[in-house]
Formats: sequence, C-alpha cells, structure tokens
Amino acid sequence: MRHYLSLRVRNHAGVLSHIAGLFTRRGYNIESLSVGVTENPEVSAMTIVVSGDERQTAQIIQQCRKLIDVITIEDLSYDESITRELLVVVVKATAKTRSEIIQIADVFRGQITDMSERSVMIEVTGNERQIQSIIGVLSPFGIERMARTGLVALKFPSKMPVAEEEAVSESADQSW
Amino acid sequence: MRHYLSLRVRNHAGVLSHIAGLFTRRGYNIESLSVGVTENPEVSAMTIVVSGDERQTAQIIQQCRKLIDVITIEDLSYDESITRELLVVVVKATAKTRSEIIQIADVFRGQITDMSERSVMIEVTGNERQIQSIIGVLSPFGIERMARTGLVALKFPSKMPVAEEEAVSESADQSW
Repeated sequence: MRHYLSLRVRNHAGVLSHIAGLFTRRGYNIESLSVGVTENPEVSAMTIVVSGDERQTAQIIQQCRKLIDVITIEDLSYDESITRELLVVVVKATAKTRSEIIQIADVFRGQITDMSERSVMIEVTGNERQIQSIIGVLSPFGIERMARTGLVALKFPSKMPVAEEEAVSESADQSW
Repeated sequence: MRHYLSLRVRNHAGVLSHIAGLFTRRGYNIESLSVGVTENPEVSAMTIVVSGDERQTAQIIQQCRKLIDVITIEDLSYDESITRELLVVVVKATAKTRSEIIQIADVFRGQITDMSERSVMIEVTGNERQIQSIIGVLSPFGIERMARTGLVALKFPSKMPVAEEEAVSESADQSW
C-alpha cells in the first residue's frame, strides 16, 4: 500500500541524508520526495511517498520520529488528503501539431510557458493520475525533456474534525 | 550564488541518500530538492537548489558525475530556465474574509481545492518570488498548514540553440 508521509523537519545540512538513509537501510525505495521551505526559514516541509505494508510503515514512522531534526511526521491517507504534483514538459511541435498540443494543455488546465519553432513548453499541476494522463497524451508528439516535482500531500480541511483543525491552527500560530 | 542543478538518476534505493550525503559532507545545505519519476520507471528526475561559489559548485558537480547512479547533471542558469514550484496552503477564513481570500487566489491564478467553514485550501504554482508573495499576502489571515514541492528547473526551449535542442531530443527519444 502507498503511504504519503508529511514531515516538518529542522532545516539543517544533513537532515535530508539522515532521513533518506533511514529508508534505504530498511530497503525502502522512496518513490517521490519533495522538500521545500516554510514560513519559518529554520523549518522545511517534506512529503515522502513510499509503498509498504502497515507494520513496516508504522515502524519507519517511529524511527523517523526519534530523529532529533524531525519535528512532526504524519501518515496521510489518500482519501482525506489532496495530493498534487507539478509537471513542466517540453513537447516537440511543428506548425501542424502546435495547436493540437495547445488544446491538450487547455484540457488539463495547463499553461504554455514558452515556445520555440520546434517545441512547446507546458506547465501543469494535478494528482498523479492526471499527470500520467497528460504525459500519455503528449508522448506521441515526442517529449523532449520534463521535470516533475514529486507529490505534496496535505489533509483536506473539510475532512478535519473542528477540534483537530483548531488544535492545528493553534500550533501553526506558534510555529509559523 | 544560487545554482539550479538538474539531474537524471537511476531510480535505486539509496541514490537519494548518496547524493544528499555528498552535499552534506561538503557542508552544503540543500535549499530545495525534488525528485519525481520520468517516463522511464528506472529513471528519476531531480532538481537541487544550492547556494555556493562557482568553484565549489563545479567541484560538487564533478563529484556527482562520478556517482554510478547519476546519468546526467546540468547546472542551469536562472536566465535560461524556467523555475517553478507548487504551493498547497490552507488559510483560515470566516464568512467575512472568504471572498477576499478567493480574490487573492485569483490574482495569482491559484485554484480553490477545498473549503470548510473555517478555512480555504488554495493550490498555486509560480516561481519563488510569486510563491513568496502569495504567502506574504495570505499570512495575515492565518496560515493553517502548507506544503511546497521545492523548485523544478528546466531550460527554456527558446533559449536552446537548435543544434542543442536536436541533440537533446535525439537522446530523449532513446531514454524516454
């Protein structure tokens, strides 16, 4: 089963390699990982996607929690969370195919970010399935280069009991 | 100076901790990192943002190049590349402030992804400056939680000489 782990960590040199090393030593392959800054420059937010059974994942969460640089770690369920990813892709285009490619980008609510005589650059966000779909539809034109950010996951506020939301927002007041 | 390193790596358990470890040992703090899959399930695309002088950065690129799991590494200049990041943010909202928050999201071409009685969830992409701006504007309402993907960088096709673009697209044909 897939797990979406949401972490807040202290922004030290080395924290990333500690955490990645923990997963590696247990034979976990990280499917996707993203680290970005938060409002607090000393804190980074990390989303890690891994596949593993319940027991294994519970164990690795325990281990992460023991790391001094890990402030919080949460295992988000797919149903209760939004998962989003950003894709930037350069697709080969000719005078003939260009408008078809732009149309496809529109369907997926993508934006055209750049264009050359030979190609179009598209930027699009979505969940994993949507990103896979647009890649599938664009592939026949020829994908020149692409970059994906890796998934971020965040709990839907509407799925959060009011008490929990209040608690989160109080702790957020302090840390952000 | 900031450097946007774009890597393609073999998708092995351990590659992430190797690369992160290399930066840590040299005292580099990774500002942002994102790893995502590519069309080829055995290859991941990675973007690493670091600050460092030219000589140091050239050295670490050389070291990365020696790692068996690193297929390509490129130091992208800011002018010639698109850099994009995805932000998902939950902002506190009341009946009074909700429409103002939605308006701000519109200005930044963000999307409202969820809503509760007490909050609004916004999803928005942009370069670092734009993401900082929207966070700045939303902060006074109270940010409950947020996740950022970390930057991805990709060379603009219009900045690529035709010969290079052709070479890239030939190698892309083989590997994707």
